[in-house]
Amino acid sequence: MLEELREIVCKANKELPKYGLVTFTWGNVSAIDREKKLVVIKPSGVEYDELTPENMVVVDLDGNIVEGNYRPSSDTATHLELYKAWDNIGGIVHTHSAYATSWAQSGRDVPCYGTTHADYIYGDVPCLRCLTEQEINEAYETNTGHLIVNEFARLEKDPVAVPAVLCKNHGPFTWGKGAMEAVHNAVVLEEVSKMAYRTEQINAQVAPAPQELQKKHYERKHGANAYYGQK
Amino acid sequence: MLEELREIVCKANKELPKYGLVTFTWGNVSAIDREKKLVVIKPSGVEYDELTPENMVVVDLDGNIVEGNYRPSSDTATHLELYKAWDNIGGIVHTHSAYATSWAQSGRDVPCYGTTHADYIYGDVPCLRCLTEQEINEAYETNTGHLIVNEFARLEKDPVAVPAVLCKNHGPFTWGKGAMEAVHNAVVLEEVSKMAYRTEQINAQVAPAPQELQKKHYERKHGANAYYGQK
Amino acid sequence: MLEELREIVCKANKELPKYGLVTFTWGNVSAIDREKKLVVIKPSGVEYDELTPENMVVVDLDGNIVEGNYRPSSDTATHLELYKAWDNIGGIVHTHSAYATSWAQSGRDVPCYGTTHADYIYGDVPCLRCLTEQEINEAYETNTGHLIVNEFARLEKDPVAVPAVLCKNHGPFTWGKGAMEAVHNAVVLEEVSKMAYRTEQINAQVAPAPQELQKKHYERKHGANAYYGQK
Amino acid sequence: MLEELREIVCKANKELPKYGLVTFTWGNVSAIDREKKLVVIKPSGVEYDELTPENMVVVDLDGNIVEGNYRPSSDTATHLELYKAWDNIGGIVHTHSAYATSWAQSGRDVPCYGTTHADYIYGDVPCLRCLTEQEINEAYETNTGHLIVNEFARLEKDPVAVPAVLCKNHGPFTWGKGAMEAVHNAVVLEEVSKMAYRTEQINAQVAPAPQELQKKHYERKHGANAYYGQK
Repeated sequence: MLEELREIVCKANKELPKYGLVTFTWGNVSAIDREKKLVVIKPSGVEYDELTPENMVVVDLDGNIVEGNYRPSSDTATHLELYKAWDNIGGIVHTHSAYATSWAQSGRDVPCYGTTHADYIYGDVPCLRCLTEQEINEAYETNTGHLIVNEFARLEKDPVAVPAVLCKNHGPFTWGKGAMEAVHNAVVLEEVSKMAYRTEQINAQVAPAPQELQKKHYERKHGANAYYGQK
Repeated sequence: MLEELREIVCKANKELPKYGLVTFTWGNVSAIDREKKLVVIKPSGVEYDELTPENMVVVDLDGNIVEGNYRPSSDTATHLELYKAWDNIGGIVHTHSAYATSWAQSGRDVPCYGTTHADYIYGDVPCLRCLTEQEINEAYETNTGHLIVNEFARLEKDPVAVPAVLCKNHGPFTWGKGAMEAVHNAVVLEEVSKMAYRTEQINAQVAPAPQELQKKHYERKHGANAYYGQK
Repeated sequence: MLEELREIVCKANKELPKYGLVTFTWGNVSAIDREKKLVVIKPSGVEYDELTPENMVVVDLDGNIVEGNYRPSSDTATHLELYKAWDNIGGIVHTHSAYATSWAQSGRDVPCYGTTHADYIYGDVPCLRCLTEQEINEAYETNTGHLIVNEFARLEKDPVAVPAVLCKNHGPFTWGKGAMEAVHNAVVLEEVSKMAYRTEQINAQVAPAPQELQKKHYERKHGANAYYGQK
Repeated sequence: MLEELREIVCKANKELPKYGLVTFTWGNVSAIDREKKLVVIKPSGVEYDELTPENMVVVDLDGNIVEGNYRPSSDTATHLELYKAWDNIGGIVHTHSAYATSWAQSGRDVPCYGTTHADYIYGDVPCLRCLTEQEINEAYETNTGHLIVNEFARLEKDPVAVPAVLCKNHGPFTWGKGAMEAVHNAVVLEEVSKMAYRTEQINAQVAPAPQELQKKHYERKHGANAYYGQK
């Protein structure tokens, strides 16, 4: 079942250590088959070297295991909430990558200081509040997903234009059209988090990039008249 | 004698350079056989490439060499004090890994700023005081062990829940159920020390993660109802 | 056409990931054949691993594709302005290398704090202003080139003695006698940007290196009586 | 001539990129044959990959080339002054390693913040003043050597106990009993420079390690009763 998607999700998970985004098993990738309403996700706590398409776990949108001999990632419920709320995303990544996680721990949004950021993410990467004690004890992972979805709505952020979020005192989630694009965005987030960190160290009074420059670069890559790359 | 433990300790020592925790010979791993009351430890000043199960050194709990042609690590006496005081630990690591050592040199505890830390370590990683001149001259390595044990008692820290300590102006010790878990915790400590450093640079007014979030994550991995990983 | 130059430009582009200057496809190298008035440049958005001398793009100085099945780099128009204005340069590099880009995002010139910098770059590396909204919307890449050329004239900087510039909120351009020297200078710029960053963290009141030391080192390598290297 | 020493010096130079101490050709190692009063040193500007025992350069203590088809390192005159002044050193290293050079650029001594430093270097690593314009123009490299020797005398530093120095706005020199020990000390200097940098970022009010701890660790490795390593 879902052979091709298992292969993609397996490969996407193995990209995480390749790009230096994870230590041990601190990250997971999933992807959704929108027709079948099934999600393929990394098994919990298994080393990336040991991942095969076969040991990926298939769950339905309520979190029931449909196929697989392993427990799914402990963050599965968060992934499911995002897939249910946003029907234009196809893959999700969660990591504890060091720079993005440091911004999450600091409780601050990552400002858009330049075109590296603007090429992929339109405006700040929001850092959400912590869950309340009640939200944590009731259904931690599900409520993490609810919070992301609700805050994006409240902040009027389009998840396609802002494919990343920081969960306070925790770490980043990124997403994309599929699993590989979600990993790509996780790499971008780590890189722009690193540069934003250093930018503020070099100039404590720095301001975000001008709005017109952000717009130009985002549209150069993603707008109706994009002219970056081969068509 | 202790063939299997020699192999584990040898392998665990070789993990230190693999994870970037050591320069030259700046780190050592040991493990204990509780029944035989014998400790296997790295030989002093020998390169990790040259380590074999055979050149590991076996000492008793008084530090006498029971088997081996090499001198044991110069930090052996510190390891022994921890094994004698804490009967629920089975392996110990000492390194000069760069971020953890920088915290030790700064004289500050590493605060728990997020779930990466809370997943493994419950609360701050304490940085102890320096030894006094008398303690240094009398029995430096033994007194380092005494200080760790006494301070954990005074601070009411459970060494199972807090498997790491910083010795001021020196560096970290970590421990675990066995040698490999102790190395795992040394990697975790370095990673959370790095993130804590960056977190404070991004936001100088940052506060530790809420107590309820720390509890949730620690118990998700280590509590009675842990649900991280495969059972 | 331009077989040899295609090979050099292809090789120079592949140096960018080798020296850690690029993530994904975030950088491009070009070189010019002054006699034929043709420029060879990286195709847009193509991975470095997939580059071959054959898929390099040849354009004339007005940006028309003369040979090649791919679109040229989206930054081509910037390269062309520099070649047209400065007839003593033969190769150009643009990257988003992390330290240099952080300086560009911070809006500050990179001061010359020591001989590593002075050996290659005479004086500060200037960080230019952002383009205006009108300049961006009219002809973003061409106007970036104009700004670099005009600012070097206004600041009385000789592009041979100062082979690097930072575009505010964007990133660095470097150049040289040919494509390989331009890459060499991109590595130097990243390294001196890193050191300048750390130098200011260590001593917030630091001053640039004395003028006579800058002069000595620049001339030791590049002056009429240079005595560094084999003649 | 000096076949064995050529091999050692060649190998020691190749250690510099292996330990991440150099970019391009930014570093050189030499060693002296005290009986023959001859020094073997890296050829200037030659890549480390291309070094062979045969292309090392042999010079006498006045800097005359005794054997070799290449120009010696442009820093040769500095090396010679140290060999002439200090008859108990056998090898010298100069690099632009990033952390040590950042301290040199900042104009500050590297304080001894812990045992990693104290294990190898007794007290601060001094950062000397810049040369005057006259000293630079007269004989830059020779006067750099004079300054190091004179300042060590004035500061009453023993070059055996303090095998490292920072030249302001330039970079570090280290030395040792032979070429390999000098390289070892260059690695140590870079590592302790990195840790000292981070230590001050974590705690701006930090003080150096207590004198008694510095003494203990230095003597544990280098004193009459040293007990680190195998005898």
